[in-house]
Amino acid sequence: MPELRTATAEQREFADGMVEHGLLLRSEVPGLYGRGHRFEDLRRRVDDMLTATFAGEGAERMSFPPLMPRRQLETMEYHASFPHLIGTVFGFDGGEREAADLAVTAVAHGDYTDALGLSELVVTPATCYPVYPAIAARGPVSAPGISVDPGDGWVFRHEPSEDPARMQCFHMRELVRIGAPDDVVAWRDRWRETLVERYRSLGLELVVELANDPFFGRGGKIMARQQRAQELKWEVMAPIAGPEPTAITSFNYHEDHFGKIFGLELEGGGEVHSGCLGLGEERIALALVAAHGMDLDAWPGEIRAALWP
Amino acid sequence: MPELRTATAEQREFADGMVEHGLLLRSEVPGLYGRGHRFEDLRRRVDDMLTATFAGEGAERMSFPPLMPRRQLETMEYHASFPHLIGTVFGFDGGEREAADLAVTAVAHGDYTDALGLSELVVTPATCYPVYPAIAARGPVSAPGISVDPGDGWVFRHEPSEDPARMQCFHMRELVRIGAPDDVVAWRDRWRETLVERYRSLGLELVVELANDPFFGRGGKIMARQQRAQELKWEVMAPIAGPEPTAITSFNYHEDHFGKIFGLELEGGGEVHSGCLGLGEERIALALVAAHGMDLDAWPGEIRAALWP
Repeated sequence: MPELRTATAEQREFADGMVEHGLLLRSEVPGLYGRGHRFEDLRRRVDDMLTATFAGEGAERMSFPPLMPRRQLETMEYHASFPHLIGTVFGFDGGEREAADLAVTAVAHGDYTDALGLSELVVTPATCYPVYPAIAARGPVSAPGISVDPGDGWVFRHEPSEDPARMQCFHMRELVRIGAPDDVVAWRDRWRETLVERYRSLGLELVVELANDPFFGRGGKIMARQQRAQELKWEVMAPIAGPEPTAITSFNYHEDHFGKIFGLELEGGGEVHSGCLGLGEERIALALVAAHGMDLDAWPGEIRAALWP
Repeated sequence: MPELRTATAEQREFADGMVEHGLLLRSEVPGLYGRGHRFEDLRRRVDDMLTATFAGEGAERMSFPPLMPRRQLETMEYHASFPHLIGTVFGFDGGEREAADLAVTAVAHGDYTDALGLSELVVTPATCYPVYPAIAARGPVSAPGISVDPGDGWVFRHEPSEDPARMQCFHMRELVRIGAPDDVVAWRDRWRETLVERYRSLGLELVVELANDPFFGRGGKIMARQQRAQELKWEVMAPIAGPEPTAITSFNYHEDHFGKIFGLELEGGGEVHSGCLGLGEERIALALVAAHGMDLDAWPGEIRAALWP
C-alpha cells in the first residue's frame, strides 16, 4: 500500500487540537476522520455559503453517490494518470465453503485477497466525473455553454497522510462548465476572481498560483509540465497547519478531454470543451479554523454572521 | 459478481417514471443512480423531518465518511454474516511498469485484478458501525444509556437490482442507543411507535412486522430464524412499486454484540447492550412519491407543508 506521509510538528499539533476540541475524530486509518457535530456544521455552512455564491449561475443541480461505474473511470483514462489514487471496489461471489473460509480469515485479520473479485464500481475520485456522461446522454447542450452543480459529493484519494489537511475521504464541492472553448476559459477565470474575493472576505490569507495535478511516475512529470505550460490548472491556497499553504480550490480547464471521450455536443456544432471548479470543503473549513481559532464561538462576529446568517 | 435481480413490471414502470420526471438518473450499473435536484431536495427534507423528530432525544451528533476501516468490519464479524454484500476497497502500489500495463488494460476494459491489492478500507455498510468504536474509545457511557445520531451517512450493499427501491448506494439515517439492556429495548420499542405515527401523518400506508437480516447461505437461515424468535429486528414497510411493501425503517436490538466486541462500558458497571434505528432515506422519499405522485408540486398541501415548512 502507498507510503504514509508523516506529519510535520505543526501538522501534528493542529490535528491534535482538532481532536481535543471534538472537531475531528481519529480512526485507525491515517487520513480517515469522523466529524464532530460542530465541524460538520461548519462544513455544511461552507457548503451553504458556496451555494449562495453560485446562485446567479443558474446551474442545473444534480448529485451522485460516492461510488461510480468502474467502466466510466476506465473510459476517461484516469488509470493512465492517477493509478495510485484509485479505490476499486471488490466483491465476494463464492459459495458456502468460500464464505466459511473468508469468515475465518477476516476475523483473524488475515489476507483474503484471492476470495474477492473486481466489481463494477470504483470510489468516486472527483464529484464532477459522473456529470459528463449524464449530460452527454441527453443530447447537445445549448450554446455557448451550460453550468452544472453536482453539489458536495464525497470523493476519495488513496494517499494516507497524517496531515489533517490531506484526508483520504472528503467533500469536494464542484461547479462544472460545458461549452465552447472561449466560454469555458472565460468562465473559469471569472470564478477565480469571484472566489478569491469571497474567501478574502472570510479572513483567509490567500496565494493564487498555477498548479498541476499529481500525475503518476516519470511520464507524469512531463504531463505536469505541459499542464502548467498551458495554464490548465490554477489553485487558491491558504495556510492550514504550518507555513506551507494548502490548496482549498482548483480552477480547471480540461480542453476537449471529456467532450471527446463522452461525445458531448454543442447545439449548432463546434468543439465542446469543459472546465470545473473543485472546492475542498473540509480544507476551507480547516483554513477558517486555522485563521480564527478552534473555539468556533470566539470567531469574529462578521465571520460568524457570514457563515451562520 | 452477484446475480442481477430483475424488476417486476410495476418496478420497471416506477423506475422509468422516476427517470422521465428527472427525479433519478440511471447509470450503467443497476442500482446506482444519480439524483435529480428535486429528488435530492425531497431526500434532504426527509432528513430534516427526521432531525426534527429526533430533537427531544438529546443525541450527540457525529458523522463519518462512506468508507470505514476494514479492520473494524472484520472485528465486528460482518464477514461471517454478510460476505456477499461487502465492498472492499483495493488499491494500486506498483511501479512504472505495472502502471503502464494497468493503463493499457483499464482503457480496454480488461481484467486487472492482479495489479491491485487489499487496502485498509471498506465501503461502509451501515451508518452506525463507526459509532461503537468511537464511543468505546472515550470510556464508560453514563447510565442508563446514551443516544448518538450519526446523521445521513452513505452506505453500500453489493446487490445489483433493477428495483429502484433496492439501491446499491443510498443514505441510511441512523439513531443509536448504547446502554443497559432494559433501556435499549424500551428505547427501540418507543421509537417504533413514534415513527409509525410520524409516517402515517405523511400519508404512508404501513405494515409493521418482525423481520430478519439477509444473512448469507444455509447457516444464515438458522441465524435469521433465531433473530425472529428473539424479536431482535422489526421493520416498518410501505408500498413503493407494486403490491409488495418495502422496508423503509428497521428497529434493531443487537444485545451485547457491539458492547462485547468493542469493550463498551457503562458507568457503575453492568452489561452494555445496543440498538439502532435504520432509516432508508431514499426509500422513504420513494414511498412518498408512490403515495402522492411524481409531480411533487401536486402533492396534498398538508404533506408539502410538513416537509417544506
